[in-house]
Amino acid sequence: MSLLGRLPTHVEVYEVGPRDGLQNELRSLATADKARLIEALIAAGEKRIEVSSFVSPRWIPQLSDAEKLLQVLPKRDDVSFTALVPNLKGLERASAAGLKEAAVFLSVTESHSKKNINKSVAEAVAAAREVAQGARAAGMRVRCYLSTVWGCPYEGLVPVTRVVEVVKQIVDIGLYQLSLGDTIGIGTPNQTAEIVQEVSKLLPIDQVALHLHDTRGTALANALVGLQLGVTTFDSSIGGLGGCPYAPGAAGNLATEDLVFMLHGMGIQTGIDLQKLVEAGELAQELIGRKLSGKYLQAALGEREKQASRARAVAE
Amino acid sequence: MSLLGRLPTHVEVYEVGPRDGLQNELRSLATADKARLIEALIAAGEKRIEVSSFVSPRWIPQLSDAEKLLQVLPKRDDVSFTALVPNLKGLERASAAGLKEAAVFLSVTESHSKKNINKSVAEAVAAAREVAQGARAAGMRVRCYLSTVWGCPYEGLVPVTRVVEVVKQIVDIGLYQLSLGDTIGIGTPNQTAEIVQEVSKLLPIDQVALHLHDTRGTALANALVGLQLGVTTFDSSIGGLGGCPYAPGAAGNLATEDLVFMLHGMGIQTGIDLQKLVEAGELAQELIGRKLSGKYLQAALGEREKQASRARAVAE
Repeated sequence: MSLLGRLPTHVEVYEVGPRDGLQNELRSLATADKARLIEALIAAGEKRIEVSSFVSPRWIPQLSDAEKLLQVLPKRDDVSFTALVPNLKGLERASAAGLKEAAVFLSVTESHSKKNINKSVAEAVAAAREVAQGARAAGMRVRCYLSTVWGCPYEGLVPVTRVVEVVKQIVDIGLYQLSLGDTIGIGTPNQTAEIVQEVSKLLPIDQVALHLHDTRGTALANALVGLQLGVTTFDSSIGGLGGCPYAPGAAGNLATEDLVFMLHGMGIQTGIDLQKLVEAGELAQELIGRKLSGKYLQAALGEREKQASRARAVAE
Repeated sequence: MSLLGRLPTHVEVYEVGPRDGLQNELRSLATADKARLIEALIAAGEKRIEVSSFVSPRWIPQLSDAEKLLQVLPKRDDVSFTALVPNLKGLERASAAGLKEAAVFLSVTESHSKKNINKSVAEAVAAAREVAQGARAAGMRVRCYLSTVWGCPYEGLVPVTRVVEVVKQIVDIGLYQLSLGDTIGIGTPNQTAEIVQEVSKLLPIDQVALHLHDTRGTALANALVGLQLGVTTFDSSIGGLGGCPYAPGAAGNLATEDLVFMLHGMGIQTGIDLQKLVEAGELAQELIGRKLSGKYLQAALGEREKQASRARAVAE
């Protein structure tokens, strides 16, 4: 046991960049470019990648090429692709596209639920249940996202009692994993500890994932708390791509490189090659046409640039 | 006791922006602008501020106005100013300028010590001891910075045994506080736990401060470990201003706002007004002429901008 308690020896990274990241970027990528990015993530050792969304193309035009993308992606037994599925129509498309996993989603707070998907929380729970049942009938496993668990852009900090109420309503829909989202990146460690502890009374800790945002710099501190309490799956986004389009002021998914750097530094295995992850992050920056917020990525690229300019100076 | 263990109820923030921050900025600020920034930090409730350095003006021209700055700063019993003091000549200047506290500094690694101050570690220890003795004789208290404690830009990760060796050499120089620096921002939580635990065998934990850099996003996770082990003083820099000029690739002191946001979220008092800290961060950006890296600052300014543009849209 380490000084920090009993830490996991292995963590699963669930990559959300191609979906959560790209849906929030103004620039829409060509299908072939998305495939290049996803292939770079696979080359870095990522095994679980959320590649798109089967919501209506009118909702998120950036992700309207879900079927086309899945057609061109490599088929590998060791890599699991998933996508958001909001309803039975989306499920039909996801299943026809060959997905083995569907992600349903809902908010903890009424106002975010209304603004995000125009449903009350009760209606969203019913929709998630319907999709989950259909997905399982179609042989797919089901992940469930819970948004605004720490705080809501419209209602502020969310009491953990509210989180517990909603988790109780969805814990039996047939999910294999529940991903708790700090949608606006407002979480701090004690709150994280309380949330994880309360939720772990309702379902086994190995079914709990944390989806942290680094909007205020606390994502890795919150991840550390999760690790200390036994969480072994963390969502992250290459380079920190994306945020939440319906959450004012929200920016910055936790960057996959930052997460993997910390985990490896703690002796926790991920199966991911950090150097190749930086290459994937660099590709993401090129494709999206701007610098991303991931700190490890910027440090690594800055370091390389300095070394290159020193080498040029020596050569001259 | 919280789920995270016995956490402190109060933390002292030691502000290094005006010194560590500004010495690493290309743009030199006018003395009056430095004073404005420091006054904004005081207005936010900061009580311990490192304002400049009494190294040779040829070394760090950005800070060559130390005397002039101290003349124009407000004299307040509840605010303690300090500055870097490398040698007896610097000490004479610091004492003449009315400082009640001197900060001496050295590195844990030989190569960083050589490149940073052109002294071996043994020579640097001797110099720090000489300054500390003189300072105490002059009625000043002494803080000691230890650089490259987690890692060195030239030697990579530093073994904790090396840290212990150097701490043993300086623990009796008459310091009231030892600030352990993650100069290149390479630290991860287990390493932090090991360092803090080993160092706390050599001096009381309330004499240990952590000076963390957020180069790879881990500063607050490391700070959390420090809190869990009883550390109650953390160095930080307004807006994340600065880095280390002799450490290639190093960028980003931990931003004071990010630290204070996490502490307050954990119910730990700092005496600092986060909103006024954002105002000080905004002033720092204006003075320095670029966006700073602090995440809370950018989130707060982004949020305000969105609200303002919504208000304009409603008015039109």
